[in-house]
Amino acid sequence: MKNLYAVILAGGAGTRFWPLSRKSKPKQFLNITGKGTLLQETVARVKTEIKPDNIIVVTNAEYKKPVADQLRRFGVPVKNILLEPSGKNTAPAICWAASLIYKRNPEAVMAVLPSDHLILNKTKFLTALRQAVELAQKQSLVTFGIVPTRPETGYGYIKIKKVKNRWNVQKFTEKPSLAKANKFLKTKQYVWNSGMFIWRADVILEEFKKYLPKIYRLLSMNPNPSAVRRVWSKLPAISVDYGILEKTKKGAAVRADKIGWSDLGSWESLADVLSADRTGNIIKGNVINLACRDTLVWGDKRVIAAIGLKDIVIVDTDDALLICKKDQSQKVRDVVSKLKKHT
Amino acid sequence: MKNLYAVILAGGAGTRFWPLSRKSKPKQFLNITGKGTLLQETVARVKTEIKPDNIIVVTNAEYKKPVADQLRRFGVPVKNILLEPSGKNTAPAICWAASLIYKRNPEAVMAVLPSDHLILNKTKFLTALRQAVELAQKQSLVTFGIVPTRPETGYGYIKIKKVKNRWNVQKFTEKPSLAKANKFLKTKQYVWNSGMFIWRADVILEEFKKYLPKIYRLLSMNPNPSAVRRVWSKLPAISVDYGILEKTKKGAAVRADKIGWSDLGSWESLADVLSADRTGNIIKGNVINLACRDTLVWGDKRVIAAIGLKDIVIVDTDDALLICKKDQSQKVRDVVSKLKKHT
Repeated sequence: MKNLYAVILAGGAGTRFWPLSRKSKPKQFLNITGKGTLLQETVARVKTEIKPDNIIVVTNAEYKKPVADQLRRFGVPVKNILLEPSGKNTAPAICWAASLIYKRNPEAVMAVLPSDHLILNKTKFLTALRQAVELAQKQSLVTFGIVPTRPETGYGYIKIKKVKNRWNVQKFTEKPSLAKANKFLKTKQYVWNSGMFIWRADVILEEFKKYLPKIYRLLSMNPNPSAVRRVWSKLPAISVDYGILEKTKKGAAVRADKIGWSDLGSWESLADVLSADRTGNIIKGNVINLACRDTLVWGDKRVIAAIGLKDIVIVDTDDALLICKKDQSQKVRDVVSKLKKHT
Repeated sequence: MKNLYAVILAGGAGTRFWPLSRKSKPKQFLNITGKGTLLQETVARVKTEIKPDNIIVVTNAEYKKPVADQLRRFGVPVKNILLEPSGKNTAPAICWAASLIYKRNPEAVMAVLPSDHLILNKTKFLTALRQAVELAQKQSLVTFGIVPTRPETGYGYIKIKKVKNRWNVQKFTEKPSLAKANKFLKTKQYVWNSGMFIWRADVILEEFKKYLPKIYRLLSMNPNPSAVRRVWSKLPAISVDYGILEKTKKGAAVRADKIGWSDLGSWESLADVLSADRTGNIIKGNVINLACRDTLVWGDKRVIAAIGLKDIVIVDTDDALLICKKDQSQKVRDVVSKLKKHT
């Protein structure tokens, strides 16, 4: 699609996937599928729709080298890699990219894509993306919604309502209680907020002007990297969800069903999306499994013997090992903060 | 005690403690307590009672070097290390040692001690040993019995009966069913067979002559190493329990209570004897424990995060990892045989 651009967000330092992800190797640089890093998979997924010149990657200055190395095979120009001097959440990154894209092409539609999510069904993803682009061309701010499959409490939910063949956004609820999540699941009026958004550059810039005027003022006039570096420290750290999407009247959604999406926010969320064997196990590596059920073993070269386990997550790396009851994989963040304290 | 000798059996190739124990590093060479290998601890436990010249170690020829290295600090003479050309169970080893000891000292009492068991309470062990020596001096074949603490089905049980201040052996039962083990536990007439035995050298040799005449004939006349090597292949492989103790009329026992004994036949048996923290965990190594209960983590240098586990055994080594439901730790042998098949 000629006017379509991708803005890939690759600045995160997510460690909830410890011990596989580390500060020095955040989620987007992990190879989960065996086909490439999550960042590379994000580019590969859209490369039939978006030419390399139209792919913008926003990352942290620290990750300049791995990002450039990983993008080389796709022909993404180095000038398309935008380096944030520090993390400021998503709104500044998106405003910066939108401003640059608008200067290049006032007709541009941009797809904002996190680089650290898993999407297993590319065909279904692209079908939903095309629907979203169509909606975006009609001035909507489109959230790429995921039809929920379980009462996940770690995600954001969006209440949507169909009006004349179009899903309008009604309300955002971030990380609901389990009771609420269950209710949401039953009513079928909710989708998960995937963090993927599709909109025209000019439309989102208008909304920045209205709802986040400081960010708009500091970035939209002169989005050249040297100018952005000078003002960066003055920018507020805020998400586009909170700063614009929860307020705008232009919100719409597409509903993507069974695209095998996971934000990889926890090991459990990976286990939910990968296909298990007949006894519910997902096993990678050199593993001897005796009578385990519903267990995820993420190994590498070392021999791992797993005996009689149920609902356990095992992740083995060279220098660290995680063994976790599946429904407590959110606590991995506590491990990471303990490790930080001691080192 | 001047006439007391130790015969330490160090030829086993036990792999039930995989992945810590391997064929190249069997149980007796593991350092479980942090104070020395199990072999060294076996020697250290008796060194106040038995002088180095009176300590005989029987091992497999393969293990000559590690055994000699580990005994050096105790001053055990190299000629006291008897090298079996192949494993023949316990009876030939004991007959060989008894014959040598008898030649040196016809008054000798010998304590047969496996080198791969754990005994945490040395003082109580020595008290029971002294009782056993006293009984042995009166011509008894004394089995060092352990007062059972649980209905373990992996051990041998001995029915004993008190007659004039002396516990007589009535019957051996090897590896009973759980129902039987429970019954044994309730009657309080049973002890576990620890595999430690105390008797006079002349008395046991008489019993060899009577019950295992072939072994007696081949070994007792000329127990010099070169002569033993020549006849070794002709010897039957049989245990002293089965070959003599289940038949003799001279059987007696001491009852050792709360000496912290484990034969380390499984990881569960180690967990049973080590002292746990208030939530039932036993943890060694660089471990972050979040909300685990009744779990054994046997780590080394790598960071191990254990989250929300219950009744799990984790053993981490350089090249292999075991994660096992505690009550299924007997299945470790299946892992070892699978590994053998594949390599």
